[in-house]
Amino acid sequence: MTVSVNKESVKIVDEMISQADVLGIKCFFSKVGSTIIDCGIEVPGGYQAGLYVAKVCLGGLGAVALNLRRYDDFYIPVIEEFIDNPIIACMASQYAGWSIKYENFTALGSGPARALALKPKKLFQKIGYKDDFDEAVIVLETSKYPPDGALVEISNKCSINPKNLYVIVVPTNSIAGSIQVSSRIVEVGMHRLDTLGFELKSIVYGAGVCPIAPVHPDPTIMIGRTNDAIIYAGEVDLMIVYDKDEDLKSIVKNASSDASSSYGKTFYEIFKEAGFDFYKVDPKIFAPASITLRNISTGRSYRSGTVNRKLLIRSFELE
Amino acid sequence: MTVSVNKESVKIVDEMISQADVLGIKCFFSKVGSTIIDCGIEVPGGYQAGLYVAKVCLGGLGAVALNLRRYDDFYIPVIEEFIDNPIIACMASQYAGWSIKYENFTALGSGPARALALKPKKLFQKIGYKDDFDEAVIVLETSKYPPDGALVEISNKCSINPKNLYVIVVPTNSIAGSIQVSSRIVEVGMHRLDTLGFELKSIVYGAGVCPIAPVHPDPTIMIGRTNDAIIYAGEVDLMIVYDKDEDLKSIVKNASSDASSSYGKTFYEIFKEAGFDFYKVDPKIFAPASITLRNISTGRSYRSGTVNRKLLIRSFELE
Amino acid sequence: MTVSVNKESVKIVDEMISQADVLGIKCFFSKVGSTIIDCGIEVPGGYQAGLYVAKVCLGGLGAVALNLRRYDDFYIPVIEEFIDNPIIACMASQYAGWSIKYENFTALGSGPARALALKPKKLFQKIGYKDDFDEAVIVLETSKYPPDGALVEISNKCSINPKNLYVIVVPTNSIAGSIQVSSRIVEVGMHRLDTLGFELKSIVYGAGVCPIAPVHPDPTIMIGRTNDAIIYAGEVDLMIVYDKDEDLKSIVKNASSDASSSYGKTFYEIFKEAGFDFYKVDPKIFAPASITLRNISTGRSYRSGTVNRKLLIRSFELE
Repeated sequence: MTVSVNKESVKIVDEMISQADVLGIKCFFSKVGSTIIDCGIEVPGGYQAGLYVAKVCLGGLGAVALNLRRYDDFYIPVIEEFIDNPIIACMASQYAGWSIKYENFTALGSGPARALALKPKKLFQKIGYKDDFDEAVIVLETSKYPPDGALVEISNKCSINPKNLYVIVVPTNSIAGSIQVSSRIVEVGMHRLDTLGFELKSIVYGAGVCPIAPVHPDPTIMIGRTNDAIIYAGEVDLMIVYDKDEDLKSIVKNASSDASSSYGKTFYEIFKEAGFDFYKVDPKIFAPASITLRNISTGRSYRSGTVNRKLLIRSFELE
Repeated sequence: MTVSVNKESVKIVDEMISQADVLGIKCFFSKVGSTIIDCGIEVPGGYQAGLYVAKVCLGGLGAVALNLRRYDDFYIPVIEEFIDNPIIACMASQYAGWSIKYENFTALGSGPARALALKPKKLFQKIGYKDDFDEAVIVLETSKYPPDGALVEISNKCSINPKNLYVIVVPTNSIAGSIQVSSRIVEVGMHRLDTLGFELKSIVYGAGVCPIAPVHPDPTIMIGRTNDAIIYAGEVDLMIVYDKDEDLKSIVKNASSDASSSYGKTFYEIFKEAGFDFYKVDPKIFAPASITLRNISTGRSYRSGTVNRKLLIRSFELE
Repeated sequence: MTVSVNKESVKIVDEMISQADVLGIKCFFSKVGSTIIDCGIEVPGGYQAGLYVAKVCLGGLGAVALNLRRYDDFYIPVIEEFIDNPIIACMASQYAGWSIKYENFTALGSGPARALALKPKKLFQKIGYKDDFDEAVIVLETSKYPPDGALVEISNKCSINPKNLYVIVVPTNSIAGSIQVSSRIVEVGMHRLDTLGFELKSIVYGAGVCPIAPVHPDPTIMIGRTNDAIIYAGEVDLMIVYDKDEDLKSIVKNASSDASSSYGKTFYEIFKEAGFDFYKVDPKIFAPASITLRNISTGRSYRSGTVNRKLLIRSFELE
């Protein structure tokens, strides 16, 4: 597989730029020549902008779509995705594994640029993929434009000219921001399995569905909602190549969010109890509501967890 | 937002023309040089043609898709849509607000051309949008080709050359016609809220799902079915920016079709009781089965109404 | 309708070739100059590759999409399709009606090339369609590359130069292979109706949904699963033009799989009982789980059959 996630993503970014007015986004050059694509800070953004951000995060390797899905008597907009190369798409590109800090600007960085800068290094050593391209695309979850110094630093880490850097900025409490978090549903499942010691390389295809959390003006509450979307209603389907079928039952049981002792509270409640310190939250809760492993080597499927409607209604303040 | 709904729609029309044989449609020039795109009068049209008509009606601003959706023990083809700029897409373009009359030809006109002719004027004053483009696209619900005199008149109202006019014609009792009516589900919800005095400008994003009524040869029965699809099974999801949360509970309660005293009868029955005079039908019935308002300003959601399976089975003669 | 299914499919194949690395497929020239597109023999293929194969099989005339569909407490990836010209798309192109044999190589051939070679002749006489194009696309369900002699023979039957032949190869027990079988759901319904003496020409539009069977390493078990997907969970929706409404109730009752005396066993069990001889299997079982006929001439719908969850769980080894 010689695919370049940055090359594929630049194609998607070009499409975004060419229809900026339709998407409700704003594209402009920073002083150092990088292209900033604002999907919700000074402009409204929207559903389609969110879908594009999701595609860019996956390095252009996933098919992503919006749907209205029924949950018994109510329905919610959801994102659905089918990913053919989930290790590269989710782990080498989408995973928010690059913490950008420059003076007093901080933001979580995700997307294909990571596969040039190899952030974090350990993960890239594990998956054995490295991109090689002279343009880079990074997605920053932030409500402020990044300073030029940060753009130069990102470019340097990617070994590219700042003029060849594309930066998508999207706030958590925007519709595009909400969509891009929910689009991480397959990645969350893979990351959880990785934490459990399950070898990432066994995962050959991924699919997932996750509600899009309704936007809340308070960023902290919004973080709670987007996490609840994944934890209490995100569903992941992974095809794996694995020779020890007998292990899968217990692995899958530990991979869904109901394995956490925090399960049953909204993420905001859990976060508050932890003093709003992510590192004090039980890591087992960062998991999909439901996960299915389909072992191609044996033909057997194993699944665990289910959608928690009640929690969703409470978190999303649906009635 | 400087988007031109006619410019966007001409792109979609060009796609339709270039694959006319695959879509089962017919494109030809009228004597005055306008392009007529027949989606179901002398040709069969089809699912994809209907999807294209829906996109054109929305001025190219909505993502529209077909799905087979389960309603308990049966399933029905539905249309799903996500619209980022619903005021322009639904009210300035899609709303069937231009009544075309020329000699003995009459048809309801909808689509982007309205945003050039500003039909109806009051609505355009309210929403403050006006297109500026030298080509126009209009959609006519009709089972007859429009006479050249009508084409000249439409062009004049749009201040364009008749050679730059694209006219999509689609009969009510065709599959493309059925789809384009169901694609109006979000617009119906917005129009209903407008009637209730809710300010349209508060609505920032729209999504909806609506069954596609099975085609019936009798146009009046077909009008009944397409209305029933919306009234008894259409679901609308609107994101709003609104500062008085306490009003929303009663607004939403009045915005779903079950607020009408006519609720529970098929539209054909209601229409018949009104002597087949639209103006004698209770206007409250022109509403979606279900509507959800998600207030971005406060994070709270309000909803009203639900799908009426029994009515749908009776209207669609499903058994 | 002057549409050429080979012309339309070559466009799709070109797209596949241009993004081979993203799709996980391999394209190369055979000695005689034909283009081989491997979607799962020496390469992994994937969801998107399967979707492309499904589109090619339908001669470019169908809209095909992937979804995660809920079946009560579990969900399964499914394929959904909407087909505007089902006689040409499904019967003249998709139907696996060309048995390729060359020395010790055998494979079932499907796709647009059949409409050049007119295989099988009787069917093409019935439907009255014949393609005319100098390039051909064939889909072979096989786990071996076809020998050059076979490519020359296929080209001769299509009256084209072997350099203008595109051959998609896909094994049954691959993800793309599983998807392409499930994409035949509408064709299976039409074929079953044809067997019952229902005139194919009455069918004007088709839609369907069918689960994608999880891959099993054993090809025979995999054949069982893909058949079970259709037989026990495939749903077909056909719009027809038909003047004898009174016949439709009994026709539709016989067209769903539950009309077979073998209904209730997995296809593997049925196949085994028949000594693994397809010709000894009750032909009534080759039918969708559920079929709906919507008569455009009268507006009435008739349906039969339903999804069999229990069987699906057993066949797919879901828990």
